[in-house]
Amino acid sequence: MRIAVDAMGGDFAPGEIVAGTFRAAVALADQVEEWLLVGREDAIRSAAAALGPWPPRVRIVHADEVVDMGESPAVAVRRKKNSSINQAVALVRSGEAAAVFSAGNTGALVAAATLKLRPLEGVLRPAIATTIPGGGRFPWVLIDAGANTDCTAEMLVQFAVMGAVYAREILGIPEPRVGLLSVGEEDVKGNEVTREAFGRLRASPLNFVGNVEGHDLFEDQVDVVVCDGFVGNIVLKTSESVAHFFGRLLRETLTTTPWRALGAWLIRGGLRELRTRADASSYGGAPLLGVPGVCIVAHGASRAEAVANGLRVTVEAVRREVPQKVARGVQELAHS
Amino acid sequence: MRIAVDAMGGDFAPGEIVAGTFRAAVALADQVEEWLLVGREDAIRSAAAALGPWPPRVRIVHADEVVDMGESPAVAVRRKKNSSINQAVALVRSGEAAAVFSAGNTGALVAAATLKLRPLEGVLRPAIATTIPGGGRFPWVLIDAGANTDCTAEMLVQFAVMGAVYAREILGIPEPRVGLLSVGEEDVKGNEVTREAFGRLRASPLNFVGNVEGHDLFEDQVDVVVCDGFVGNIVLKTSESVAHFFGRLLRETLTTTPWRALGAWLIRGGLRELRTRADASSYGGAPLLGVPGVCIVAHGASRAEAVANGLRVTVEAVRREVPQKVARGVQELAHS
Repeated sequence: MRIAVDAMGGDFAPGEIVAGTFRAAVALADQVEEWLLVGREDAIRSAAAALGPWPPRVRIVHADEVVDMGESPAVAVRRKKNSSINQAVALVRSGEAAAVFSAGNTGALVAAATLKLRPLEGVLRPAIATTIPGGGRFPWVLIDAGANTDCTAEMLVQFAVMGAVYAREILGIPEPRVGLLSVGEEDVKGNEVTREAFGRLRASPLNFVGNVEGHDLFEDQVDVVVCDGFVGNIVLKTSESVAHFFGRLLRETLTTTPWRALGAWLIRGGLRELRTRADASSYGGAPLLGVPGVCIVAHGASRAEAVANGLRVTVEAVRREVPQKVARGVQELAHS
Repeated sequence: MRIAVDAMGGDFAPGEIVAGTFRAAVALADQVEEWLLVGREDAIRSAAAALGPWPPRVRIVHADEVVDMGESPAVAVRRKKNSSINQAVALVRSGEAAAVFSAGNTGALVAAATLKLRPLEGVLRPAIATTIPGGGRFPWVLIDAGANTDCTAEMLVQFAVMGAVYAREILGIPEPRVGLLSVGEEDVKGNEVTREAFGRLRASPLNFVGNVEGHDLFEDQVDVVVCDGFVGNIVLKTSESVAHFFGRLLRETLTTTPWRALGAWLIRGGLRELRTRADASSYGGAPLLGVPGVCIVAHGASRAEAVANGLRVTVEAVRREVPQKVARGVQELAHS
């Protein structure tokens, strides 16, 4: 197994990306034949210089150009042929790598993967599945978290199948509960697209639990939450925003008196635990499902540890043959 | 000024509704001619028995039927002609009351108001404006928070106008910053409807700041956030869900050791402050804008204090002539 890593993508690239790859190379030495760090050779080498010895099985694949975080994905993919993202995806297309990992411009990775790898047979649109901490034993999966803004009911049903495969194979949830994100529980609630998707999901072989609402998301009601990428992206970013807001209010209130400051000191370990439990980066990146190859997008702010976690998930997705199982799931849906 | 209160709507009706109305009747005695408690006379009287003396200017308007929280709005409005919601709205239609307040079935109030009062001239769809605490000096307004699931770009622009009027008149924000909820900052980002709405908003007389994303919502970037009611309802309920989840994690972590329990005791005042600052119920209910009359929907879980706050906002909206100003704003938009 070879893994292509976009060394230039992310707020802290290449430093933290290289550091995370080195960690993963050590931790997963027995599972991966070669790690391909794709990007500017000089930048990667100087980032690596601070990290101690170069681990075995890590090789640089030079790519001149870099896609910036704010750049238009379509333009970036067409114009910057030799960008690290494009080259990393090309390694998957040619079969040299089984997977690509990037903490860079999500839209550019989605565009590159969709254009170069092409969707799996029968897949209308690849979609991003994001793993989010929740109130239950397992985290939950939000799909589509941002790849497709306008979706048909048929697409939503495929997202459900792909998300269920991912929840089963990677999170280890035997029969994932699939819910359709909507504004009421009954099948008549929702918008035009979700009302149609409701009927199709009920008729599908999935463990469909019906519509779920915003207030069910962190309450262990559902394992896979299906929505279009417009709603999914807003849900994801709103959740992060509320969590930050809450954290800021908490910090502010804990410094207003000396007694409170003492209290804050006494609970500091608890606050650290809380942050860890609420932190999605331990799940290490979100797959773009529906393409023939493992593509993992990580948060732009990923540090070395998050990168290493993401690479662990990447390797796991290859080992568990997630793309092949997604393909099979979509085929079965078509024939059901 | 007369205010109609749906005494039977809400998780704690009629007890907390009657108690909240009594408080408001005392606090706002100089502004309101009569409070009309609409609902089952016997239930209202026995709820009032526990509350001390009956305040002046509060009168019961008997209504036999009650719309349950889970009931289908359309069915409820058509079949339960003599429900407290229908009767309260009828008091506004006949001119006997200037406003209606309900903590009951939101969909039923929207349906009753839309059908009985009819939208203001030129208004395509009435919309719910919800006030939410944020990172700035003022809270922010989310519109539409759930009245309309499928919206056109034209509707979104009207929502923006109505939300801006509300932010100015009720929250006192001189030139509200209006943002369009989307998945990227540039005008090419979003779905088909928001891309069209972007151009229309830029051409409007509003103080339009462009697209805003989920992570901007609690960061004092925007005063009025515009979206369709499907997205708005999901944003609202997701935010509540994240806040509850965070609170639960915090409580769990604060009870694991005696030292942490002591720390929790030292910061208890701060946690109370935090809860107050993050609690939307102090804003007391959300108006349905775009109908000729003030209609305020409150959270189903409203207790007496939230009801009293909601009634204060209700009175303020009548005094500030919000419906008339919304009508003028929509007219001006049509001629701009």
